[in-house]
Amino acid sequence: MSEHATAGGTPTLGVGMVGYAFMGAAHSHAWRTAPRFFDLPLAPRMRVVAGRSADGVRAAADRLGWDDVVTDWRQLVARDDVDLVDVCTPGDTHAEIAIAALEAGKHVLCEKPLANSVAEAEEMVRAADAAAARGVFATVGFTYRRVPAIQLARRLVEQGRIGEVRHVRAQYLQDWLSDPAAPLSWRLDKEKAGSGALGDIGAHVVDLAQFVTGERLTGVAGMLETFVRERPVPASFSGLSGEAGEGVGPVTVDDAAVFFGRLSGGGMASFEATRYAWGRKNAIRLEVNGTHGSLAFDFEDMNLLHFFDAGEDAEVAGFRRIVVTEPEHPYGGHWWPAGHGLGYEHAFTHQVVDLVEDLAAGKQPTPSFADGLAVQRVLDAVERSSAGGSGWVDLPSS
Amino acid sequence: MSEHATAGGTPTLGVGMVGYAFMGAAHSHAWRTAPRFFDLPLAPRMRVVAGRSADGVRAAADRLGWDDVVTDWRQLVARDDVDLVDVCTPGDTHAEIAIAALEAGKHVLCEKPLANSVAEAEEMVRAADAAAARGVFATVGFTYRRVPAIQLARRLVEQGRIGEVRHVRAQYLQDWLSDPAAPLSWRLDKEKAGSGALGDIGAHVVDLAQFVTGERLTGVAGMLETFVRERPVPASFSGLSGEAGEGVGPVTVDDAAVFFGRLSGGGMASFEATRYAWGRKNAIRLEVNGTHGSLAFDFEDMNLLHFFDAGEDAEVAGFRRIVVTEPEHPYGGHWWPAGHGLGYEHAFTHQVVDLVEDLAAGKQPTPSFADGLAVQRVLDAVERSSAGGSGWVDLPSS
Amino acid sequence: MSEHATAGGTPTLGVGMVGYAFMGAAHSHAWRTAPRFFDLPLAPRMRVVAGRSADGVRAAADRLGWDDVVTDWRQLVARDDVDLVDVCTPGDTHAEIAIAALEAGKHVLCEKPLANSVAEAEEMVRAADAAAARGVFATVGFTYRRVPAIQLARRLVEQGRIGEVRHVRAQYLQDWLSDPAAPLSWRLDKEKAGSGALGDIGAHVVDLAQFVTGERLTGVAGMLETFVRERPVPASFSGLSGEAGEGVGPVTVDDAAVFFGRLSGGGMASFEATRYAWGRKNAIRLEVNGTHGSLAFDFEDMNLLHFFDAGEDAEVAGFRRIVVTEPEHPYGGHWWPAGHGLGYEHAFTHQVVDLVEDLAAGKQPTPSFADGLAVQRVLDAVERSSAGGSGWVDLPSS
Amino acid sequence: MSEHATAGGTPTLGVGMVGYAFMGAAHSHAWRTAPRFFDLPLAPRMRVVAGRSADGVRAAADRLGWDDVVTDWRQLVARDDVDLVDVCTPGDTHAEIAIAALEAGKHVLCEKPLANSVAEAEEMVRAADAAAARGVFATVGFTYRRVPAIQLARRLVEQGRIGEVRHVRAQYLQDWLSDPAAPLSWRLDKEKAGSGALGDIGAHVVDLAQFVTGERLTGVAGMLETFVRERPVPASFSGLSGEAGEGVGPVTVDDAAVFFGRLSGGGMASFEATRYAWGRKNAIRLEVNGTHGSLAFDFEDMNLLHFFDAGEDAEVAGFRRIVVTEPEHPYGGHWWPAGHGLGYEHAFTHQVVDLVEDLAAGKQPTPSFADGLAVQRVLDAVERSSAGGSGWVDLPSS
Repeated sequence: MSEHATAGGTPTLGVGMVGYAFMGAAHSHAWRTAPRFFDLPLAPRMRVVAGRSADGVRAAADRLGWDDVVTDWRQLVARDDVDLVDVCTPGDTHAEIAIAALEAGKHVLCEKPLANSVAEAEEMVRAADAAAARGVFATVGFTYRRVPAIQLARRLVEQGRIGEVRHVRAQYLQDWLSDPAAPLSWRLDKEKAGSGALGDIGAHVVDLAQFVTGERLTGVAGMLETFVRERPVPASFSGLSGEAGEGVGPVTVDDAAVFFGRLSGGGMASFEATRYAWGRKNAIRLEVNGTHGSLAFDFEDMNLLHFFDAGEDAEVAGFRRIVVTEPEHPYGGHWWPAGHGLGYEHAFTHQVVDLVEDLAAGKQPTPSFADGLAVQRVLDAVERSSAGGSGWVDLPSS
Repeated sequence: MSEHATAGGTPTLGVGMVGYAFMGAAHSHAWRTAPRFFDLPLAPRMRVVAGRSADGVRAAADRLGWDDVVTDWRQLVARDDVDLVDVCTPGDTHAEIAIAALEAGKHVLCEKPLANSVAEAEEMVRAADAAAARGVFATVGFTYRRVPAIQLARRLVEQGRIGEVRHVRAQYLQDWLSDPAAPLSWRLDKEKAGSGALGDIGAHVVDLAQFVTGERLTGVAGMLETFVRERPVPASFSGLSGEAGEGVGPVTVDDAAVFFGRLSGGGMASFEATRYAWGRKNAIRLEVNGTHGSLAFDFEDMNLLHFFDAGEDAEVAGFRRIVVTEPEHPYGGHWWPAGHGLGYEHAFTHQVVDLVEDLAAGKQPTPSFADGLAVQRVLDAVERSSAGGSGWVDLPSS
Repeated sequence: MSEHATAGGTPTLGVGMVGYAFMGAAHSHAWRTAPRFFDLPLAPRMRVVAGRSADGVRAAADRLGWDDVVTDWRQLVARDDVDLVDVCTPGDTHAEIAIAALEAGKHVLCEKPLANSVAEAEEMVRAADAAAARGVFATVGFTYRRVPAIQLARRLVEQGRIGEVRHVRAQYLQDWLSDPAAPLSWRLDKEKAGSGALGDIGAHVVDLAQFVTGERLTGVAGMLETFVRERPVPASFSGLSGEAGEGVGPVTVDDAAVFFGRLSGGGMASFEATRYAWGRKNAIRLEVNGTHGSLAFDFEDMNLLHFFDAGEDAEVAGFRRIVVTEPEHPYGGHWWPAGHGLGYEHAFTHQVVDLVEDLAAGKQPTPSFADGLAVQRVLDAVERSSAGGSGWVDLPSS
Repeated sequence: MSEHATAGGTPTLGVGMVGYAFMGAAHSHAWRTAPRFFDLPLAPRMRVVAGRSADGVRAAADRLGWDDVVTDWRQLVARDDVDLVDVCTPGDTHAEIAIAALEAGKHVLCEKPLANSVAEAEEMVRAADAAAARGVFATVGFTYRRVPAIQLARRLVEQGRIGEVRHVRAQYLQDWLSDPAAPLSWRLDKEKAGSGALGDIGAHVVDLAQFVTGERLTGVAGMLETFVRERPVPASFSGLSGEAGEGVGPVTVDDAAVFFGRLSGGGMASFEATRYAWGRKNAIRLEVNGTHGSLAFDFEDMNLLHFFDAGEDAEVAGFRRIVVTEPEHPYGGHWWPAGHGLGYEHAFTHQVVDLVEDLAAGKQPTPSFADGLAVQRVLDAVERSSAGGSGWVDLPSS
């Protein structure tokens, strides 16, 4: 990829990462780990990480394993030893960084949601299209696609094992805001985050529904709610939690979203995203019912996929609990023996693997920015539906 | 109740049942069984069953344990030895029979949904109100309320164990129409059934949501679909299944319904009812998230209730899998030792127990016809929303 | 069977029951209910129940639905209108009653365990053999065989779906004695009960293991323990629970049993029975691993059977969660539509159905007294192994 | 630890690893990853890996991240830059390598089982005791102790939350040898592996039972079996699976082990280890019942611990499904937000963390070689019991 190559002759892929919080830690682990378990056609090199705080970014680089630091992402984008820019910042900065990187000839891996508005996302797609014509590619980090059970679900749908899709029910349930004393964070600030549960976690289940079915939503109707409208200003923060400081500030995003939609193949889909489901920690649930069978997944048991084959004799038909850790399974055989389950971060490693393989082959990685825009349009339509009395909002067919 | 009394001095309750198919069998079992396991203040007497086919009703009476038969329900309503009329016919006949019975001074237990239209249901409520003033009571058979785990859920909500309700997610999933070769039945005929999945099974989850939360829906938006618009005319029928005969006929009801709504306390509720979820046989799922905890239920494990108490230390907090068979549990101690699970029909027996106790005490049994009307209005609002582009439809507050 | 017949011409089967506690209630429900849901070739008539307390047995007869009462079981055995004697008393009385009934030409259904000693059980088998030669049959009430999921498990083994059996693991876990304040009952008295957890609940899992595999244990080694050696004398009792009275008395039976054994086909089997497993209410767990597949069952989800078919592609292989309520399933189609689960007492109803069909056909019902003796010998061998340092004890091959 | 230190002043810990197959890959990942997520008091340096094949060890070093290679483990033990020797070879070499390393003043992390015989294990304990007196420490890799749910189980037992232990039931079920065509490997060769399922996987559940309860087994009785006595010679191998080559060879170890034992506190324990449980991939199941509550764990859902607290009101008591990913949980807060589950290899990372912290503090890490010997003695007693007719074998109390 870059002119550099390893001693073994594998060309290298210089990576620069912008942002180093929760997502930055997950991405760094993936860049470090992927070449240890997979034979990659490009050897990733963790060149540089960018962050505004000089001390913060230096400590992060040491901990996460980056060679160098900069305090302005523009410096990172400009570097010759960076072939790919990995954008791990809040959504309000995605468009500017990603477009600049693409224009500078760098591949881009951008965290989701793609942008905070459809207009920004459209601009990003235009930049991605222009870059792709020059062999420079952009992808958006809907990482849950890379959970092996989800990949298997997609494979079974493609094989026709469940027939035509009639129902999707998708939920993303968390509980970390259930306590009204949980403090504010950038995720609760519309300027930074674009939306709340809808964009942060709802985006994932919209993408999963479209990915697993291979279809697009053609319209939606929805309802948003903000249950707790003021929260304490945080004194400190780490991960998703923090400690309350003095004073309160407004929550400017939705706490929860409920919506339904129509799939391009005619099926019905229902969605829910909330951070107020006490006891559900990261319950990404996806069920698909087709004319020949059904699939069910819950991230709280992420190594399992449940599959019902309606072609079986009624006497012995039943949802099969597939432990998705066999060599025959997606990404199987690269990790541990069957039954030795994987965790959350493995999906990020798989994302690196798939991305590097596509880049080496000169192929557009998936999901593209256009896929990210498609999700963005759904989020936008849900917001408009909710604002306008929950009426139906059509989505463009492309 | 009636002038009759048992040898032991317990007054009797003469029962007449109209209809003897699936619901008739379940109700008969309940009338036979309730006095064997519970001390009832009135002794039910299974006097007479009505059906249009003389042979059919006679065979049913023998099998189900009724003393006598009539071929016209009006004869049944007119009998002196009948104190209560149990209406187990399709929805298009509920209003006429129930109103006649109430006017004749008979208590009424009417299967759900209360009626096939809001107008009919309103008429039934007026008749019920008039009868109640005379000490004659009407109730509607939302039997799933009487599953012990559901009663326990209601009890925990009343005790404040989950706080204010923020989310309800309720689904009723079956698969018996997934096969397009499954034949027509009266349940697929709008004239008889009023609606399809919406009224047949969606009604149950609407009632459960309102019962467990103690709240009413204040508005909804929804989408209906009929996936298979023509089906074979059946040659024969039993239960929910049948064998295909010659020719096809139209399906005039919905196959599936997806909707969401707002609860009177401000919470958000989502609903789905379908007979096209391959592999889900009778999955009535109800989850409630409140400010202090959560509840979860699935009829496929009907003896279990899952309860998360947010007040517990995080170290040991988790959904509790409560096996609802202890003497301390609703209806507990009347059946078997703990862990010796109950089945589908026990809820019908509990319905008889609760009804007989209320009648003996001169109290209005629950759910009332007004409760049934409230459900009917929700179903109607969903149909109107779906017909009108899924826009929001407000519900009356009473 | 008897000279009597119903109006419809079905011959009747006069039944007399001895004992009317927990088992008596379950048996009575079954006699009442079986003809309502199944077409039986003989019409059971609940003629008479025997109990030592005149008041107690009269109240029980009224509640449970028996026509008449006697206070001496010998009177019951002598009656002409009794064709079958149903023995629901503690184990120390089984031999005397069952043998007298068989000698009087009555069929016998005897609760498990068959007897309190191998010697008694052998005597009962001799009586049963003699009676069978005269067309009079005896069977022992290992009711859990009649749970549909267990019948399906047996069917799949017979079909060769799991191949040759390599492992059985069987547990019966309860918790009702975990509390040392739980009072004494006849189940804790060696004179009455023969043994404790071993004979009361361990007997069930021994029978299930032998029934489902179709094999016999050829030897065992085991360990028994009594954790709480004195308990309060009860003031009153109902079901398995009671209230403590004054004073304490000795527990003379085992509280828990752990043992393993060899199956006649060469497989290994492990067993555990305890009433000290806090939180497990009636967890009868059975797993069978064969050369071609596996089965798993837990009575806490009694409507489910889990089946792994090793012949499936690894990509989609997984334990199938079979909801055993389809018309194609054992006893299916006689109750409710698919997914409308059954409960504990249905197995008793199925026991009546199978027994009545076998009697009408002049066939030996299963399990025979010989099957009951086989279980008794296993229990005895476990006791001898435990008493003798847990060494191996061979079992006779017949 | 060594004279070296990082730029940040943290002293380093030079590590040399012997062997680089399945366990070598897992250990390497842990050494690489631990300092990225935890603040370690010593900075691990992956100095050198030893393997007999020069090409093989070089490729492994590149892939796994080791600085240097040697083809004789004695060279590794002799190096000044190695402070700790990590032994990842088959069991027949453990004693020689570990003792040499300890005598050379190197800390030792030795994979389990500690040795292939009690005699070897005793020798190793003597070497470890001698080394400990010089501040050089030895530990054995019972990694499953470091699964967060298992650590939480231990914590709850220590807190008295389940009271005195009455029952342990522990199973380790796999299926990778169910197919008789699966080829031979060193794990099936008694010379290399010492024993089969008993030592390979049974050792883990023996250790877990003793660790979680804090007790020791005082005696056992058991039964071993080899179901498939000849298998194909493998052509190639990776992980636990391989492809068959030409010819067959003998299986000289057990395929399955079933045993029970007595705990030092008086409780009863039952164990099973097999690789013939079709459909169970890595099912490590542990249940503990105490006088005040119960615990249950299954590695197939490794992020969950189930806890029953008998002190709760019966109305709401139930097994709590604890998702062990909260900051309050063992190793919590170092990885991802709650609900973002961990996988198999995290336990190895935790092992490094705990080991490094103990070494920095000059403390004996756990489990010690003496703990490993205790497990070895249990395995040996089971073998002797099985060989001698399954009679009871006492274990020494130390």
